[in-house]
Amino acid sequence: MTERILLTPGPLTTSPETKAAMLVDHGSWDEDFRSLTARIRQRLLAAAGGSRSHTVVPLQGSGTYAVEAAIGTFVPRQGKILVLQNGAYGKRMARVVEALGRRMTTVAVPETRPISPVQVASALNADPDITHIGMVHCETGTGLLNPVDEIAAVVRDQGRRMIVDAISTFGALPLDIGHWPADAVVGSANKGLESVPGFVFAFSTPEALTAAAGNSASLSLDLADQWRYMEETGQWRFTPPTHTVAALDRALDQLEAEGGIPVRHRRYRDNMATLLAGVRALGFETLLPDHLQAPVILTVLTPGDPAFSFQDLYALMKQRGFILYPGKTTDAASFRIGCIGAITPAVMERAVAALDASLRDLGMRDRAPATPLEPVA
Amino acid sequence: MTERILLTPGPLTTSPETKAAMLVDHGSWDEDFRSLTARIRQRLLAAAGGSRSHTVVPLQGSGTYAVEAAIGTFVPRQGKILVLQNGAYGKRMARVVEALGRRMTTVAVPETRPISPVQVASALNADPDITHIGMVHCETGTGLLNPVDEIAAVVRDQGRRMIVDAISTFGALPLDIGHWPADAVVGSANKGLESVPGFVFAFSTPEALTAAAGNSASLSLDLADQWRYMEETGQWRFTPPTHTVAALDRALDQLEAEGGIPVRHRRYRDNMATLLAGVRALGFETLLPDHLQAPVILTVLTPGDPAFSFQDLYALMKQRGFILYPGKTTDAASFRIGCIGAITPAVMERAVAALDASLRDLGMRDRAPATPLEPVA
Repeated sequence: MTERILLTPGPLTTSPETKAAMLVDHGSWDEDFRSLTARIRQRLLAAAGGSRSHTVVPLQGSGTYAVEAAIGTFVPRQGKILVLQNGAYGKRMARVVEALGRRMTTVAVPETRPISPVQVASALNADPDITHIGMVHCETGTGLLNPVDEIAAVVRDQGRRMIVDAISTFGALPLDIGHWPADAVVGSANKGLESVPGFVFAFSTPEALTAAAGNSASLSLDLADQWRYMEETGQWRFTPPTHTVAALDRALDQLEAEGGIPVRHRRYRDNMATLLAGVRALGFETLLPDHLQAPVILTVLTPGDPAFSFQDLYALMKQRGFILYPGKTTDAASFRIGCIGAITPAVMERAVAALDASLRDLGMRDRAPATPLEPVA
Repeated sequence: MTERILLTPGPLTTSPETKAAMLVDHGSWDEDFRSLTARIRQRLLAAAGGSRSHTVVPLQGSGTYAVEAAIGTFVPRQGKILVLQNGAYGKRMARVVEALGRRMTTVAVPETRPISPVQVASALNADPDITHIGMVHCETGTGLLNPVDEIAAVVRDQGRRMIVDAISTFGALPLDIGHWPADAVVGSANKGLESVPGFVFAFSTPEALTAAAGNSASLSLDLADQWRYMEETGQWRFTPPTHTVAALDRALDQLEAEGGIPVRHRRYRDNMATLLAGVRALGFETLLPDHLQAPVILTVLTPGDPAFSFQDLYALMKQRGFILYPGKTTDAASFRIGCIGAITPAVMERAVAALDASLRDLGMRDRAPATPLEPVA
């Protein structure tokens, strides 16, 4: 099968070195693998700013598993969570809470607007039962970056706690995790850390994890139990995805060699700037104003020209070696192009050239969206 | 890092071809990956006997996730499960049920005895509230094979349903899944199928999955929702472990080339026979009588000679290229040697020779266990 560049928000393009780390079978009980687990935990903490007050708990599964584990572990059975929603992943967080049966309230704003810290403050003021707020840092459904530091300040002032879904931002942007009043900040191996999918992780504090013992109504997704066992034995409670753990260790070598998250962030910003300039030069319009755009994934509005078909564009781009991503907005027809992974601005330039050629193949002339957008404040 | 033979019950030794399948990044939304998912589902069903009444639901995570997902999805909130216990994994199943908060009763027998179908019949007769029985086919804690067909007959007669943990037997032994009154039979990619860890799967029927919609108190571990979405879209609900899915497809090529599960079963029986004869010739005693022994993993009793140390033996065996596994019994000091994976009787012979050499290095003379065992009926 031909190797293609994934312009997707993860699984994404990983380096050959990262994938080659999966060519060894590790015994999960063996000291070498325990050392590997200890090393990735130390390196994840270092990448998170090296806060001495924090720890990190790896967990088998996908990002949604991490969000569910964080809510199930830290929101007390009698607690109540305020879920902030401005896109697909905020909505999914609410689905998780509904399944778990925890009490919930929501603040929802349109997909093209960030969550307002003022609105969060009002909601918290109005409801003292709220113990936690749950939020998504970068809404991968659109690419919008929510103001997590400002919201964290409000939550701290109000004496509540946070669950932060930083799945698409951890590794991609410098995060000030140590200053958030968060019981859990969850991230994934297969986003900005540029490794393969298979496990996720939550940053927390030993105090919060100790206090949460026995709260989870799931054994598999109990972060407190996973942490306790890992601290005691150096092992995962249940069969770890050994090969993908080895891949993350190799991917973290490359993160450090690159200069860490701030340098990676600059590369992703350059990728996004190249992509944005390129698609605009091709006549596309994008969903978000630039100041709300995370350097992670770009939502491009579907052109109004009847010659346009995302399926056809997808097939043409795939022939040219690039994998696009469908839209995940409810309010506007769109598709998405990711800019994270083991890719550079030069790759983004090739992707834009491939887009141009593919649009010509489609016979498109008019590339403006079908319906002009309302101006966004 | 040197490649070693894992004499462990999974993660285990996989072939170079299986691992090489992980050298490609797949887009999770792409048609190629959807085809890969459809193909492994078809091939898993074929390996399970090709029952037309069944379907299979892959799920991100480890074996325990699959057990929890099966119980959470299929045992009604007001249902009651009888958990059969004769080892570590039966006990873990009970921990899962406790966390989920479902009503439970247990039948527990010593680790060296199989679950008795007669005892199951009595327990079901005595308690009409029991809707499900949960059982482990091969207790990997000891290596004991429970009489699943006989228990299935009892459960069918009584009109109840089963959840079967076939994690260490699916792929290793021919299973008559189509004839069990089971809502779920769960298996793993990294046991008898000889692939890498990262996901698991449950065999069920469309009727049971449809009826279970909305029952799970977990979004991530809801098999009914995972199945519905996969049937509708061909995709996984949440980020799949793309590389490990590709590895299973490659591993299934090798299962088919070998002649399917019956032929693999013969290889594992030959592996176990070689191992058993070898360790006995070295003076070791084993926990189980041969007729209870699954061709999966052997529990060897710790010799009484004070010169023996499992840690030292482990280190010496590792130097010789073999990874052993610690014991997981509560009643007897022991260690374990697995015989599944991409290994042959010739490898088992080399392992026995390495054991012999390692015991000589330890300076051991007397290899009998510290305490003579009670005869087992």
